[in-house]
Amino acid sequence: MAPRRRTDTHLVTRVDRAGAKRAPDELIVEEPMTIQLDGHRVATTMRTPGHDYELAAGFCHTDGLLAGAHIIGVRYCADGAASDSEFNVVTVETGGRAPVPTPRLGNTTSSCGLCGNEAIDQLCDLLAPLPATAPIALSVVAGMPDAVLGSQGLFGSTGAVHAAAAFTADGEVLLTREDVGRHNAVDKVVGRMLLDGRLPATGIGLFVSGRASFELVQKAWAAGFSTLVAVSAPTSLAVQTARRAGLHLVGFVRGDRLNVYAPERITDDARWGSLAGGP
Amino acid sequence: MAPRRRTDTHLVTRVDRAGAKRAPDELIVEEPMTIQLDGHRVATTMRTPGHDYELAAGFCHTDGLLAGAHIIGVRYCADGAASDSEFNVVTVETGGRAPVPTPRLGNTTSSCGLCGNEAIDQLCDLLAPLPATAPIALSVVAGMPDAVLGSQGLFGSTGAVHAAAAFTADGEVLLTREDVGRHNAVDKVVGRMLLDGRLPATGIGLFVSGRASFELVQKAWAAGFSTLVAVSAPTSLAVQTARRAGLHLVGFVRGDRLNVYAPERITDDARWGSLAGGP
Repeated sequence: MAPRRRTDTHLVTRVDRAGAKRAPDELIVEEPMTIQLDGHRVATTMRTPGHDYELAAGFCHTDGLLAGAHIIGVRYCADGAASDSEFNVVTVETGGRAPVPTPRLGNTTSSCGLCGNEAIDQLCDLLAPLPATAPIALSVVAGMPDAVLGSQGLFGSTGAVHAAAAFTADGEVLLTREDVGRHNAVDKVVGRMLLDGRLPATGIGLFVSGRASFELVQKAWAAGFSTLVAVSAPTSLAVQTARRAGLHLVGFVRGDRLNVYAPERITDDARWGSLAGGP
Repeated sequence: MAPRRRTDTHLVTRVDRAGAKRAPDELIVEEPMTIQLDGHRVATTMRTPGHDYELAAGFCHTDGLLAGAHIIGVRYCADGAASDSEFNVVTVETGGRAPVPTPRLGNTTSSCGLCGNEAIDQLCDLLAPLPATAPIALSVVAGMPDAVLGSQGLFGSTGAVHAAAAFTADGEVLLTREDVGRHNAVDKVVGRMLLDGRLPATGIGLFVSGRASFELVQKAWAAGFSTLVAVSAPTSLAVQTARRAGLHLVGFVRGDRLNVYAPERITDDARWGSLAGGP
């Protein structure tokens, strides 16, 4: 199958004080993708094509749908006479070992598939607190936006896409994924690591290019990351959830300053290092 | 009932090159809200509390669930012995005049080939092309980010919230709503105008503080706005949908430059004005 386009070029009108001119503009592609688990439809998300198997596997994992079942296959539903649309349905297969998914809702939006306070509690109750690990040095954390930027090819061309990346305590970027949806970018990173047998991601950091919502903290927790680094601010629920998880949560990472939101107190300054120090 | 908090204060650790200190930080509140239509659950969204009735009414309208039925009431499902959670379920009532909502998703079918593309087409097929209106002058459009910023109280305190605003061709901001979710901010604006009998919003502009996804274009179309202005870039599908709708779509509005994405051609430069000119 031909690789799916991730950007499209449209003729647009660029206007500045000098006047208006027609020019091509590269825009990020956004298409619906339906995820099935053992043939049961579980979600549809608006995503940027590419790494679709990772997205499907990662979603099933972070949403708690696998319940520990091993993935034996991931495939498109295309039947040969494939139209583009048929590459927008992906099935994750566990041979029926995953429990039959129960619909949380009739209707999910692109940014949230969650269902109420009870669902949030249920989702978190599935997860054990993370094992205590040495925190990643803040000097490493502070360098992540610049470190990841180099691998954000779609951002460079469109300026309108989120990135998620896994990184080591030494600051090495292990993999980066980009998507029109922040949660999809995270699921693609998680899915890749799941398919590679690299979960739980103990001691590994997860970087996200925007804000940290509850959903992202929950996904980082489900994948076992030890640290979540967000360029922008977390929500109140994200902070509460990170503290419950034992997840290190760092936000508002802007050049030479950042905020540590979880744990509640930094008790071992020497270990965390400082922004002035090296990794 | 007491007003719900829209921000929370957490003690966090602020780190810069001078060192670390504990300080209070104001964070945006994010809570799930379930929307029901005549008692049928239709969606749950992570939202910032406040303007919940507008959000519920706006969602039902932009999602095409009302099918023209008049809203006769909007209420919380709280039963008196109200916990906070009970203010997270809102029912929109049409006295049964709206059709019973059918779940778009769920695991009742496992057939391949049915996918989100058809759902998108169905959603758009519900909508007639917008009536042709005089475009809002680009000098007015260029001023919207600054004009709306003054009414973004939550952004000022948290730096982590989206805004949507309705504005006139003269550049008057009619109302602004803020939410952790961009689509919620839009639904709150649409819901307020619906409840005030001000839809369709012919000749009125809708401003959003971030990118323009398909979902936002579809919501603007459903509410009948003539122009959508996004601070950041649209997606490819957003541009295609705006052109199909006859919606003026302007993006990347940054100081003294912007891009017009729809219509495909600006055919009447004098009418659109220029960035140098006044409104």
